[in-house]
Amino acid sequence: MAEIRELSEHVGATVTLRGWVEGTRGHGKVAFLVLRDGTGVVQCVVVKSQVQEDEWALHGVLTPECLVRVSGEVKVDARAPGGFEIGVSALALLAPSEEYPIQPKEHGVDFLLDHRHLWLRSSQQRAGLRVRAEVEQAVHDFLYRGGFVRIDSPILTGAVGEHAGSLFETDYFGETAYLAQTGQLYIEAACPAFRRVYCFGPTFRAEKSKTRRHLTEFWMVEPEVAFADSDENMRLQEDFVSYIVERALENCAEELKVLERDTSRLEAVKPPFPRMSYTEAVAELQGRGAAVEWGKDLGASDETELMADRELPLFVHDYPKQAKAFYMKENPADPRTVLCNDLLVPEGYGEIIGGSQREDDLGRLQARIAEEGLPEKAYAWYLDLRRYGTFPHSGFGLGIERTVAWITGRHHIRELIPFPRLMNRLYP
Amino acid sequence: MAEIRELSEHVGATVTLRGWVEGTRGHGKVAFLVLRDGTGVVQCVVVKSQVQEDEWALHGVLTPECLVRVSGEVKVDARAPGGFEIGVSALALLAPSEEYPIQPKEHGVDFLLDHRHLWLRSSQQRAGLRVRAEVEQAVHDFLYRGGFVRIDSPILTGAVGEHAGSLFETDYFGETAYLAQTGQLYIEAACPAFRRVYCFGPTFRAEKSKTRRHLTEFWMVEPEVAFADSDENMRLQEDFVSYIVERALENCAEELKVLERDTSRLEAVKPPFPRMSYTEAVAELQGRGAAVEWGKDLGASDETELMADRELPLFVHDYPKQAKAFYMKENPADPRTVLCNDLLVPEGYGEIIGGSQREDDLGRLQARIAEEGLPEKAYAWYLDLRRYGTFPHSGFGLGIERTVAWITGRHHIRELIPFPRLMNRLYP
Repeated sequence: MAEIRELSEHVGATVTLRGWVEGTRGHGKVAFLVLRDGTGVVQCVVVKSQVQEDEWALHGVLTPECLVRVSGEVKVDARAPGGFEIGVSALALLAPSEEYPIQPKEHGVDFLLDHRHLWLRSSQQRAGLRVRAEVEQAVHDFLYRGGFVRIDSPILTGAVGEHAGSLFETDYFGETAYLAQTGQLYIEAACPAFRRVYCFGPTFRAEKSKTRRHLTEFWMVEPEVAFADSDENMRLQEDFVSYIVERALENCAEELKVLERDTSRLEAVKPPFPRMSYTEAVAELQGRGAAVEWGKDLGASDETELMADRELPLFVHDYPKQAKAFYMKENPADPRTVLCNDLLVPEGYGEIIGGSQREDDLGRLQARIAEEGLPEKAYAWYLDLRRYGTFPHSGFGLGIERTVAWITGRHHIRELIPFPRLMNRLYP
Repeated sequence: MAEIRELSEHVGATVTLRGWVEGTRGHGKVAFLVLRDGTGVVQCVVVKSQVQEDEWALHGVLTPECLVRVSGEVKVDARAPGGFEIGVSALALLAPSEEYPIQPKEHGVDFLLDHRHLWLRSSQQRAGLRVRAEVEQAVHDFLYRGGFVRIDSPILTGAVGEHAGSLFETDYFGETAYLAQTGQLYIEAACPAFRRVYCFGPTFRAEKSKTRRHLTEFWMVEPEVAFADSDENMRLQEDFVSYIVERALENCAEELKVLERDTSRLEAVKPPFPRMSYTEAVAELQGRGAAVEWGKDLGASDETELMADRELPLFVHDYPKQAKAFYMKENPADPRTVLCNDLLVPEGYGEIIGGSQREDDLGRLQARIAEEGLPEKAYAWYLDLRRYGTFPHSGFGLGIERTVAWITGRHHIRELIPFPRLMNRLYP
C-alpha cells in the first residue's frame, strides 16, 4: 500500500492507495476523484474506456468521505495540487459514507463544533492543526537543544492559586483538589536541580468568558531559568518566539497557503523585539485619548490600540504591583512596579506571553502573600525555596492556541485546538 | 558567569560560578566544597594560604544548599567526578540555608515526599527525572520524524469512559465533566485527517491503589495509525520502545550510572520482541502451577511469573473479549478474543503498553457498547467515525512513569514523576 506523501518515488509505476473521497466530478467519459489518505491529497482520473464497467458505474455514486481503494499509474502533472495525478486502472468502494453532515456550503459555527470529530477532516482545520503540531515540536526542540530539562507539573493541586474564583475543583479521596492554572510554582522548585527547566501541558480556567481568545482548557509552555533576570528573560522570549515562527514558515508553507496567511508579516519576526515600559505605554495610550489609568492592568482593547501601527511583537514591562501576581519581584528602581513583562503580537492577537522575575526575598514574598489574603500554609513548600539557598530566577508562560492563532492568522483560538472546551461546550 | 557543563572550554582560565553547596570537608589547610549549579557538579578546592582570611573562615560555616559564588582556575583532574576541579581564588555566600531538612542519612519515604520540592535536588532524583525528560523528547522525536501529527486530546470530557467508577469529576458550569483516562477515542477522529497521530499528556485514575505501579495522575503517549492492523501495531511498538531505550542509553549514561542501573539488560532491547498469545500464556502459567483461568485478565503476579526467566520485552496478544475494553476489534480467527496486545517488560516491571486494533464495524461496536451497559448517546460522535468511511486502525498507550522506572531500574514509579499524586498525597 503506497501513501500520497511518497508519490514522487513512484512516478511511472502503478500504486495502490487507500483513502477518503473528498469530491468527484465527471465530464462524459472522464471523471475526477479527489482522494485524501491522511498523508496528502491527490486527483485520480478515471477514463471510462480504461476501467471495468462496474468501476465506472461506481464512480458516479461515490459520496464524500467514503473510503476507497484506487490503483493506477503515478503521473507528473504540474497543474495538479501536489504535482501528481493517478491514472486509475482499478477502483473499489471499501466503506460507505451516506449523508455526510458537513457539506461544501456555509455551516454555522455551532454546527461545526458539534461535528468537530468530522470537521477535523476539512482542509483549513487540517492546516491549522498541523501548524499547531509543528509549533509544539519546535517548542520541545528549542528548549531541549538549549539544555532545558522538561519537568511535568501536576494538574491536581491542593494549593489555592492566584485566581481561586476561577478554578475547577474535584473531590480527591475526601480532600478538595483544584485543576492547575499554571505549573510555574512547581517548576521553580526544579531550578536548583537543573537550572533551566520547563513544563508543557494543559491548564484550566473556570472563567465565564466568551471571547475569541479564551478557552477553559488550553495548553501552555512555561520555561524557568535560575540566575536569569528580567532582561535575560525577555531575550529568551524573543529568541523562542522567533524560532517558533521560523519553524512554522519553514515546515508549514503549504498549510499557511491553505489558510491564506500573509507570511511577509511573519518573516519580519526576528529578535530583538522593541520594549516599552508599562508607564510609557499608559502615556502613549492616554496621548491617543484612551481612558486608561496608571495602576490598572491593560485590557484587550488597550493592547489592540497599542499594537495598531506596529509590525513587530512588543514587550511591555514593569507593570504596577497591584495589577500583577504575588510572586513577581519588586522593581528596585521603582517599588510601585514589579519586574515583569507581557509580550504583545500585532494584527489584533494581543498578549501571547506573560513573564516575570520571581520574588526571591522570603520576607517580601510572605508580605505579598499576606497582602493578597492568600493562605500562607498552602505556600509553605514554595516559601522553602526562599529559605534554602534562595536564588534569582525568571520565567514565562506562552499560550499555545493564541500563538498558533497569530501564526495561522485565524480569528478564533477555538479552531487551533483539536477539541475546544468553551463555557458551553464539553462535547464531542 | 560560567556554567559547570562548559568547564572543558575554560581549562587554565579563571571562571566564576554560582551554585548550591552539596557538601564540604576540610583537612587542616585545605578544604573541599562540592558545588552544584544545575548544569553539573564540581569539586572546588580551597587552600588556606590562597584566599582571604574571611573567605577561609566562611568555608567552615557553609551549610548544605546555601548559595555561593566561587571564582577560581579550572583544572583537569581525572580523579574528580566530571573530570575538572576549581582552584578557588574567591568565595562568597549569596544566600544561607539553615537546617536544610534533607540530611545525608536515611529518611522515611513520607518525609521525602513531604519535601519533594527539595528532594528533587538529590542526585538520584535528578538522575531519574533527567532520564524521564530524555524519554519524553525521544517520544516526540520518534513520532515527529515518523510523520505523526500531534493531536492534544481534551482532559475535560463529557463522555463516560470505560471505568466510570474510577473517574475524577468536576462541575462544569452546571454540567458534570470527567478527567480523561485516555485520549484514544478523540485521536481516532483525527486519523482520517492525518493518518498517523498521537496524543501525549496527563491522564487520571481515581483508584484507591497503593501499589508501586500506580499513580492517580500519570503521563501517557498514545499513537494511532489508520490502516494499521494488530500485527503492524506491535511492530510499531517494538520499534518505538527500542528507540526510547537506545536514546536513554546514548544520552543518559551518566544518570544510569548514578542510579547503578545494569545497562547490559537494556542494550539487548532490540526488535523484534517475542510474541505469545494470551491462550499460550495461560497454558504456560498453568503449567507452572499458577491459579490462572482462561477468560480473566492477567494480574501483576501473573505477569511477573511469565517474565521470570525472560530477558526481552514480551508481547502477549489476543486476550478474551470479556477481559478487555469495548472498542477492541473482534478476532476473526477466534471471536472469543480481540485483536489486542499488552507489552510486558522484564525485571518485575510488568505491563508498560496496552494496544489494540479498533472495532471498525458499526453494528459490532454498537452491540459491544450495549453489552457493557454504556450509554450509546455519549458515544454518538465516536460511532460517527464508523458511519462515514470507516477504516481499519490500531493504536496503543505507553505509560511514561512505568517505562522510565524500568529504564532507570527504580522500584517505585512515584520517583519518576516530579510531583507524584497518590491516593493520600496531593502536596506539595
